[in-house]
Amino acid sequence: MPVIDLNSDVGESFGNWSMGDDAAIFESVSSANVACGFHAGDPSTMAQTARSAAAAGVTIGAHVAYRDLAGFGRRFLDCTPTELADDILYQLGALQAMAAAAGKRIHYVKPHGALYNTIVTHEPHAQAVVDAVRALGGDLPILGLPGSAVHARAAAAGLRTVTEAFADRNYTPEGTLVSRREPEAVIHDPEAVTANMVRLATEGTITAIDGTVIRTDAESICVHSDTPGAVAMAAAVRRGLEEAGVNIRSFA
Amino acid sequence: MPVIDLNSDVGESFGNWSMGDDAAIFESVSSANVACGFHAGDPSTMAQTARSAAAAGVTIGAHVAYRDLAGFGRRFLDCTPTELADDILYQLGALQAMAAAAGKRIHYVKPHGALYNTIVTHEPHAQAVVDAVRALGGDLPILGLPGSAVHARAAAAGLRTVTEAFADRNYTPEGTLVSRREPEAVIHDPEAVTANMVRLATEGTITAIDGTVIRTDAESICVHSDTPGAVAMAAAVRRGLEEAGVNIRSFA
Amino acid sequence: MPVIDLNSDVGESFGNWSMGDDAAIFESVSSANVACGFHAGDPSTMAQTARSAAAAGVTIGAHVAYRDLAGFGRRFLDCTPTELADDILYQLGALQAMAAAAGKRIHYVKPHGALYNTIVTHEPHAQAVVDAVRALGGDLPILGLPGSAVHARAAAAGLRTVTEAFADRNYTPEGTLVSRREPEAVIHDPEAVTANMVRLATEGTITAIDGTVIRTDAESICVHSDTPGAVAMAAAVRRGLEEAGVNIRSFA
Amino acid sequence: MPVIDLNSDVGESFGNWSMGDDAAIFESVSSANVACGFHAGDPSTMAQTARSAAAAGVTIGAHVAYRDLAGFGRRFLDCTPTELADDILYQLGALQAMAAAAGKRIHYVKPHGALYNTIVTHEPHAQAVVDAVRALGGDLPILGLPGSAVHARAAAAGLRTVTEAFADRNYTPEGTLVSRREPEAVIHDPEAVTANMVRLATEGTITAIDGTVIRTDAESICVHSDTPGAVAMAAAVRRGLEEAGVNIRSFA
Repeated sequence: MPVIDLNSDVGESFGNWSMGDDAAIFESVSSANVACGFHAGDPSTMAQTARSAAAAGVTIGAHVAYRDLAGFGRRFLDCTPTELADDILYQLGALQAMAAAAGKRIHYVKPHGALYNTIVTHEPHAQAVVDAVRALGGDLPILGLPGSAVHARAAAAGLRTVTEAFADRNYTPEGTLVSRREPEAVIHDPEAVTANMVRLATEGTITAIDGTVIRTDAESICVHSDTPGAVAMAAAVRRGLEEAGVNIRSFA
Repeated sequence: MPVIDLNSDVGESFGNWSMGDDAAIFESVSSANVACGFHAGDPSTMAQTARSAAAAGVTIGAHVAYRDLAGFGRRFLDCTPTELADDILYQLGALQAMAAAAGKRIHYVKPHGALYNTIVTHEPHAQAVVDAVRALGGDLPILGLPGSAVHARAAAAGLRTVTEAFADRNYTPEGTLVSRREPEAVIHDPEAVTANMVRLATEGTITAIDGTVIRTDAESICVHSDTPGAVAMAAAVRRGLEEAGVNIRSFA
Repeated sequence: MPVIDLNSDVGESFGNWSMGDDAAIFESVSSANVACGFHAGDPSTMAQTARSAAAAGVTIGAHVAYRDLAGFGRRFLDCTPTELADDILYQLGALQAMAAAAGKRIHYVKPHGALYNTIVTHEPHAQAVVDAVRALGGDLPILGLPGSAVHARAAAAGLRTVTEAFADRNYTPEGTLVSRREPEAVIHDPEAVTANMVRLATEGTITAIDGTVIRTDAESICVHSDTPGAVAMAAAVRRGLEEAGVNIRSFA
Repeated sequence: MPVIDLNSDVGESFGNWSMGDDAAIFESVSSANVACGFHAGDPSTMAQTARSAAAAGVTIGAHVAYRDLAGFGRRFLDCTPTELADDILYQLGALQAMAAAAGKRIHYVKPHGALYNTIVTHEPHAQAVVDAVRALGGDLPILGLPGSAVHARAAAAGLRTVTEAFADRNYTPEGTLVSRREPEAVIHDPEAVTANMVRLATEGTITAIDGTVIRTDAESICVHSDTPGAVAMAAAVRRGLEEAGVNIRSFA
């Protein structure tokens, strides 16, 4: 029986500001990327999110980021590798405590936003992420893009690397994401998205924008949580996978 | 052989701003109250402080505070008990990760500044501190003032309470601190301070401002780290205690 | 022709987090309480809000607050009067620049949240607000509750005081707001709210919860912007006032 | 009689953390680059600094920065040009209010740290600085490096550009600063520094590290405020200039 993980960003509220409908997303996903307070997520939001994930049987991962609340972690910050590793370790420890209070623990790390994109190629920041995960102990897997610098560094450090596909994004024939600057970057049709993800889970392939079939070893699918229609899209993908006989389960 | 703990606030730098001479203080104290990022202490400062404490053989405690960098945690913040408990748990988790990366762990909790003073009488905030410590697990002792609300709550929750005396403060005959508004609140003479602390460690008494001898069960002595002469005062107290045959050792 | 002002809180988004539908609110109100970055409102939100208010012909006021993004300015912060006055002056200057860039200026000051409530009775914080307004120059009026400490201080300092009524709140026979802890604190029926506000504008009275008619000299009506139905309520109040021949116009 | 300006960074304390000895620096300089709260400088520090500068007869400039307290504004932040322009306008407005409360106004703008370095070549961020200055109104001059992108953009926008030399830095024969990675980047000898600055003020030349004489039109000299010996160095430069008959005066 084929197996795949569904992950989504949650816990992105801050203080009086809400974002996303985490309770609804938890009905569809198997893994929760929980914001740790540096781009989103105040301590009470984190504690509540950890409890909700635990209650829903969703695996908790740490969604770590540059220190940038005003920019939601979407802006590159040229910090030193030491600063970055310490900032990440701080976030991991904080979320670990919240998970423990909910009777759970962190099972993986997924860098967020600008950090996610930066460590595809930025070697010192990629290494800093790996250093932070190792400093925490426990050898948590790192969720990221195939071929990224952070995955190379993680593998070299003996950490497990887990690659993910993006449910609603078009891919180039080379297997990279179509740039968001292109009009066809995002697929809005739930049926098309679902069909693509069923092929990923059952055949290990994604169909690129030009029809090319790309092989992939993605173990997880990222579904959005904060766009219009996000909840419905996540539910559609889950239903489609289940109907195709795919077991939706955390990779951890 | 009599035993006493010496504690001091450390790790209070933030980014480009330094505070205190932690390396010098570590030569005198047995317990380090490490700032956790909410009133002072950025992640890199915390990581470095944990390593330095570990190297010096000093026990690590969490110096938790209201969320108030601009006010250094010295201003009462009327947050809800839930917000406070979550803010403290976040700080505890973050420091726990830093301590673990240095091969150590947190051994106690000492609330800082306005929080320290508030939970002498503020029952909901006192309970929030206890709730956070219990949520972390591990039953960490809470360092505080004798007779404080937080100690009553901690005891009721089955946590160990450790009381402390302030090395350079004058006491009233009733055993409370002479208010800082009074001219004689602080004792500046290292010899007088040391003599008072030797009596505390060897006889379990402090001599109040009017000469009254007060019984106390303080297991720890707080020495300042960020006032002029702090390092010399801490060293004098340590030397005096050692010469009097007192074993300086963490209570944890 | 009777005249009244309608004011509402706007510009309360922060970074990636949105709050309220300011464009819709600007169709109903004559005065915009613009958040200044300490409880909500990043600089780009402030700049955009000032431009939108200018385009809509809505008068700009400064919605100043305690420094507390995490608590949305709804938590009392025991800062010194000097810290508070300087924090407010900083906010006023920042918004002044945004208003100037939009071809406008600040016309009044309305303290927000916990600060608004605190300075009903807290004399040092009330004086700090007045000191900040005077330090800015220009003698801006202060919008607040009748009988508040801040109004007494403002009057003593030669500043104009403007009192406001809350459109959807029930009043006691003594003219104070029914506590939010009471089930009938808030009036949800737009017709009842509108009728009450028409009486306020045309007769200078509000009908209290028990039917008592209270005289009031409120020159402004506060309508909410961030509750469900806020936009519709604001529009209903405006329409009702216009139909009753009331001129809706800034007090400034 | 030759004329030159001496500028220095001041107001860089934050909350409980002090930095620099501004009172001593004010005895030597003619222009104060005042931190505006985004890299350093809380509102009370800003207010006090503005008053001190006013009392000392020192001209006030705005030391604007990326939003990065934890990194002291020394880390590039990849914000959008709009975000940057709004962040700078916010800072300018806030300091304007503090200066006005001290009976003064802002007379120039000097970008700080990573922003200063970035806008030597980063065209969108350079333009954002110019846009913010124009949005404030008043056509403030921008202090920076000769040949920088920000100066080209400022000139194109009709703003005055003022170039500065760094008192204690060695220059290459091409007129650029010797990199801080080189051992001879900084000149530590006050006499050598002073002699170089006297030549700058009286002859319009700097002697490069290899003895080459470089022509320069620098109208201002930057002296440090927060390094060991900074106060003595600033005083030495001032004394040397005065003894050489140079009039030390703001360029504004």
